[in-house]
This record gives sequence, C-alpha cells and structure tokens, in this order.
Amino acid sequence: MDVSQELMMSEIANDLTSGAAELALRSINIFRNELAASEDFVLVRESLQSIAQKLFKSQPAMAPLFNLGNVVLFAADKANNIEQLRTLVDEALTGFESRLCDSAAKIADTAYELIPPGAMVFAYSFSSTVVSALLNARSKKKFFRVVCTESRPSEEGRKLANMLDSAGLEVVHTFDSAMGLVLPTCSVAFMGVDCVARPGIVNKVGSWLLALACRELNIPLYALAGTEKFVTDDLLFSFEDHERPGSEVWSDPPAGTKVLNRQFELIPFPWISGLVTEQGILKGEQIEAYVDEVEVHRVFE
Amino acid sequence: MDVSQELMMSEIANDLTSGAAELALRSINIFRNELAASEDFVLVRESLQSIAQKLFKSQPAMAPLFNLGNVVLFAADKANNIEQLRTLVDEALTGFESRLCDSAAKIADTAYELIPPGAMVFAYSFSSTVVSALLNARSKKKFFRVVCTESRPSEEGRKLANMLDSAGLEVVHTFDSAMGLVLPTCSVAFMGVDCVARPGIVNKVGSWLLALACRELNIPLYALAGTEKFVTDDLLFSFEDHERPGSEVWSDPPAGTKVLNRQFELIPFPWISGLVTEQGILKGEQIEAYVDEVEVHRVFE
Repeated sequence: MDVSQELMMSEIANDLTSGAAELALRSINIFRNELAASEDFVLVRESLQSIAQKLFKSQPAMAPLFNLGNVVLFAADKANNIEQLRTLVDEALTGFESRLCDSAAKIADTAYELIPPGAMVFAYSFSSTVVSALLNARSKKKFFRVVCTESRPSEEGRKLANMLDSAGLEVVHTFDSAMGLVLPTCSVAFMGVDCVARPGIVNKVGSWLLALACRELNIPLYALAGTEKFVTDDLLFSFEDHERPGSEVWSDPPAGTKVLNRQFELIPFPWISGLVTEQGILKGEQIEAYVDEVEVHRVFE
Repeated sequence: MDVSQELMMSEIANDLTSGAAELALRSINIFRNELAASEDFVLVRESLQSIAQKLFKSQPAMAPLFNLGNVVLFAADKANNIEQLRTLVDEALTGFESRLCDSAAKIADTAYELIPPGAMVFAYSFSSTVVSALLNARSKKKFFRVVCTESRPSEEGRKLANMLDSAGLEVVHTFDSAMGLVLPTCSVAFMGVDCVARPGIVNKVGSWLLALACRELNIPLYALAGTEKFVTDDLLFSFEDHERPGSEVWSDPPAGTKVLNRQFELIPFPWISGLVTEQGILKGEQIEAYVDEVEVHRVFE
C-alpha cells in the first residue's frame, strides 16, 4: 500500500459524519487501486487482505465495510495468478457497487410511499440511504418538511441539514435532546443503519432514544438499509469496540471527570415499524434468513 | 432603577446555565437595592412592581422569580409610607431567602436517603438544589459517582461536572443523546425543576427524554424542588414563551433552515417517582393542595 492509499484509509477511519454505505463506495476505490499497484500476485492478495482487515477494524460497526471486504476476499481466494485476481476481484467490486446503488434506489422507492404528502419527516444522524430516499421523493414532486437534530458530538445532523437545504427542501433543525419537542409534529421518522443481525439494529448513539420516543408517541420509525448491512450475530457486537476519544466531546474537562464517547448503540427490532431494504419492508422475524446466509471469511474471524 | 440594577436584571435574563433557585437568590439583592434607592414612597413601590414584572418576563419558566416578586408585591401593598414599605418588603425578602435555603437543606436530607451507597447517580442539566443535595450527601461520607450530560445548547451540564469535580466527586460525562447508554448503569436519577403545577413539572428540554428513558429502564427519577417552585396552572404554560435565538444552537445554518431553540418542556407527574420538596416526597395527586394555595398578585395577571 502506498502513501495515498494509506491516506484514503485513514480518512475513512476518521470520518465521523459519513454513512456506512457512503464509506463503502469510497473503499471500493481503495481495493481497485491496489489491484493495479503491483504485478506480484501474492503481494497484491496479501494487500487486499490487509486492506479488508484495516477497513473493518477502523469502523467495526459499519457492516458494508465488512461485507465489501468479505466479497473481495472470497473472490481473491479463487484466483491463481495476478490476471485472475484482477478479473475476479474487479467483478466482485463492480457487483458490490451496483448492489449498493440498486439497494438505495429500491429503498428510495419504498420510502416514497411512507411519506404522507405535506408531512413533517424526522431524520436522524446522517445516512446516504436516507438522503437519497428524501431527495428521490422530492424529485417526484412530493412535498414535505424535514426535522433533524445536531447529532453530537460529530454534528453529522448539520451535514444532513446542509445537504437537504441545498437541494431545496425545507429543514427544521434543533439540538438532540429537543427530540421530544419536535417529534409530536412529525408523521414519520427515518434512520440509517450501520449493521443488522438478529439482536437488532446498530446505529449512531441517540437512535435508542429516538426509537423509544417514537414508540411512546406512536410515530412510525423506519430504518433504511440494503442487505449489505446484514452481518452475523457475533460480528454485530464488534460495534462496541468503537469507543472514540472523550476529547471529541469535551476538549478541556476537569481532571477528575471521565468523558465517554461511544458512537453506536443497539435498537431492538420490536421498537421500529420496519426495516426498509431492497427486498421490501422486513420485520424482525424475517431477518433470520438473511443473517443465516452471511458467510464470514476466515480473515475476519 | 439605575444602570447597575438594569445590568443585574439583564444578567439574570441572559443566564442560561444557572438554576431557578440560584437566580431567585440573586434577584433578592435587586429588590433590596431598590428599597434604598429613593425616599419617594410611590416611586419605590412602582419600581418594585416594574422589577417584579421584568424578572418574571425574563425567565417565565422559573417559578421562584414569580413567587419572589409575588411576595414582595403583596408585602408592598400593605405599606402606607416609605418606612413601612422598607420594613415590610425587607421582611418578605428575608423570609423568602430563608425559605429557599431551608428548602434546599431539607430536600438534601431527603435526597441523601435516595442515593444507594456506591451507586452511579444520573443528574441532568444544572440545578442548585440538586448540587446541594449531592454535595450534602458526599459531606456526610456517602460515596457515589455522578453521570451528567452536556445539556446543549447552553452546556450547563459541563458547569455541573466542573462544580462536582472540584468538590471531589467522581464524574462521568457524555453527550445528551448518549443517555440511553449511561442510564442502565445508574441506580437513581435526579433533575431540578423550573416550575410545578397540576399539569406536571417544567424543566430544561431533554427532561422529557430522560423521564421516558428512566421509566423504560425502571430507574427511579426524582425531581428536586422547594414549594417556591409551585405556580398556578395558568402561569405554568408561560414557559412556552421562552423561545431563544436559533443562533445559540447553530450560528451559521443554511439560509432555508429554521433553527428551533426552546428552553423548557413539560414532564407528566406519572413519569417521575416523586417530587422531593421540603414537605417530603410528593406524588402528582398531592400537588393540588399546594397549587390551590398560590395567590397571584394582579401585576402578574
């Protein structure tokens, strides 16, 4: 791996405001670059493994990074020389890329039906899948307003507000703990997903409070995720490894104060109205079949 | 009113991090200064009225500012000359001041019993009543840790962390939406109160989510407030007038984005375990008798 590849990897590791699907698309380029980096079959195959492992460790909650690395490594295992490696891995990358884009488009079409005309829609944190669903609905002339909150400490809720605002949507913005004040004005709420397995949905911290409040207020809450977000039950809990520096929350706390900065949390399936995937809207009990299908490359075990 | 009095008033109006009881203590000095400001009976009486009205309007959710002005004006009504005015109002101020201090001390003694030894205690926003309860418990050699969150946008949760930390308490701090992650580690939660009447308890935004989460997780949540926080049901809803500038939440939002900055919200009585007052721990149904006693001076109607 050369310096520019290392830089792209560290940008992904330190990216606190992009959604999982978005980072997977950027990771595809890293794998592509590596395929062309050398003529040495063994060296390239080892680099692909190393990239897959590093991407997974850098954002352990983000399932598409795992699933992307997983398909790359299974494809690489079938190659016997550098040409085969390039062909097979490139096919896998292209397949994963179109899967991500097709998923987003199908999810957007399903989400369109879930937005009542003229509604106030709540959107939490930042998810490229949610953004594409909202922009798709607006481009089809459905009019609605979006409420979003800061999403401390990385403030990716502001990134969402900026993006929707520049696309001409009407946005209402407030701080995270004001969810209880704005949700009663909303007809539906959407959130992104970092990974899914039988225990539930992992997403940005704050999603648990959002789901609890939506349940209390009888507001339908949908999680939007392609099946590239599915992982095994074992892998699901690696999101808990993703403790960030406390200084990102508070740069100068008093000496005796410990500052916690966890990124992700688990939301139980029964708390959401449905998981909107490219296969339709799934309920908790339908997840099992998908999770059973996930095969994990030995490199991730 | 002279310039220094005006300055003290505007400091109270713009104080977003002090609790209601703390601001009432500072307001007592403003009334005291005014009593000495002139020998003109009518002029001083009118100034007292004007101060009472302005303090109430500057922080309409903070009941002690209303109740202080209320007792001052009822006392002033009984005076026929400047000497009587000074004597009667000074008595009223001294009475209110000792009521505030006695309340805090009695509440602290009751709260002491509610903290299990070695427990993790959640404390939300900033309340001088909660601080005095926690410091009193520590001074009596009860050991426990306190978790608090930022309390965006004014971040008075950091003020709380600083104060408890400098008093030698172990503090854990995180962002507001991480409540769902830290509450399961807590044995009890405390919050302050801005005002109370039959509809419920008004406190800093975020308290509704806290109460919802505590109910879900079976964590006892106590609101700490002396009866100087009681108002009439009519006055209770004036907290909704306290909309602050959106720029305090986000200084440079995109042009089409409306930024909401509400300060206070209502928490229903059944969601809390009890209201800890100087009269003991009250339940919702016991509030009625106190609210019925509140007599409102015509100036506030």
